[in-house]
Amino acid sequence: MSYQKSDAKKAVIILSGGLDSTTLMYWVKSKNFDVYALSLDYGQKHKKELTIASNHCKKLNIPHRIISLDAIKGILGKSSLVGEKDVPEGAYTEDNMTSTVVPNRNMILLSIAVAYAIDINASTVFYGAHSGDHALYPDCRPEFVEAMRKAAELCHYYPIAIEAPFLHKSKAEIVKLGSDLNVDYSLTWSCYKGGDTPCGVCGTCIERAKAFSENGLIDPLSNKKIN
Amino acid sequence: MSYQKSDAKKAVIILSGGLDSTTLMYWVKSKNFDVYALSLDYGQKHKKELTIASNHCKKLNIPHRIISLDAIKGILGKSSLVGEKDVPEGAYTEDNMTSTVVPNRNMILLSIAVAYAIDINASTVFYGAHSGDHALYPDCRPEFVEAMRKAAELCHYYPIAIEAPFLHKSKAEIVKLGSDLNVDYSLTWSCYKGGDTPCGVCGTCIERAKAFSENGLIDPLSNKKIN
Repeated sequence: MSYQKSDAKKAVIILSGGLDSTTLMYWVKSKNFDVYALSLDYGQKHKKELTIASNHCKKLNIPHRIISLDAIKGILGKSSLVGEKDVPEGAYTEDNMTSTVVPNRNMILLSIAVAYAIDINASTVFYGAHSGDHALYPDCRPEFVEAMRKAAELCHYYPIAIEAPFLHKSKAEIVKLGSDLNVDYSLTWSCYKGGDTPCGVCGTCIERAKAFSENGLIDPLSNKKIN
Repeated sequence: MSYQKSDAKKAVIILSGGLDSTTLMYWVKSKNFDVYALSLDYGQKHKKELTIASNHCKKLNIPHRIISLDAIKGILGKSSLVGEKDVPEGAYTEDNMTSTVVPNRNMILLSIAVAYAIDINASTVFYGAHSGDHALYPDCRPEFVEAMRKAAELCHYYPIAIEAPFLHKSKAEIVKLGSDLNVDYSLTWSCYKGGDTPCGVCGTCIERAKAFSENGLIDPLSNKKIN
């Protein structure tokens, strides 16, 4: 057999650099896992989140690997997050946010994360799907996650676990948890546009502001409460 | 909604250029699908199969897309098919062939093929898993394929079908079927080593020879019956 059995306390976390996955990274670390962060550069416009993810990992002394999926940009290119369309403004609605769907993104991310886990003998892949995304992104829904869990149990000589502990949490609950874990939210990035400061008007900026506001907290990135 | 509903008679086929996937391509074509071939270059040593796949698609007038996964070579690199180890010789056995396992290869291939299907509005992804690989490659087994089918049904706004019609066929049965479909086996490549002519001694050469021999056929690539 070419591969060792996996190390139960070694985990890969899919890190976008946003609020959810960064909170997840702190949470997994708090459970005493040896954490390896993996970011995928799939040609998203807001590369800023990757730089911030990197800086955050350095701060926490967590190994961080960025894998470029440049080669598949062509087949992911209809999404406004990747291609030439403008990112929609205003709160998430089905009409304006389906253009931010990157086809099959999470299956691709998870499949590569599982390969990475096998490579470093990690037992578990953590990812930050949460309930706020269920309505708009089919590949954030519990039934999709369950199917991928099953596939990851069967893809190798021993099972790899996929865990999505925030699957039934709202973004506000994630911020609450992160604030208890002392997450440094100044080192996270959510805005789809990736300017010098968050635009404040795209769907993810609005969701983020709401999540802080519902906890009576101030987002260190905006330094103002948005209601 | 950014994406049309899929076209029921449009299909993506994962094409390695080997015997199984090439036969599958003819089979899918015979079922009157509009076929789009997809090959993944994951750094395998035998790139020859990609060139041959390309030539075969030209011959059949099938659009062929090759996607390079160079960026993930690092995490796939422990396999002898990718890295610096020698490809083992002799018939497939668990001992010598686990070194040819590319970690989580089929989940990665399927996830990208499903994204491609969504991109071109294809309803179905076909791939050539067959019973001969079940013992050695966990990600060719029926239970793995079933989990991935489920995931692909759920990953997007409408289901994408994953079909593996050879799942319970042996390599000899595939050659029998291919010979009925007039597959041009001179335009396929199986040898893991990728020399000018098949080496005849690696596991896949031996399996291929056996599959032709069991049908009383001569492999046009070797021009000799190997028993």
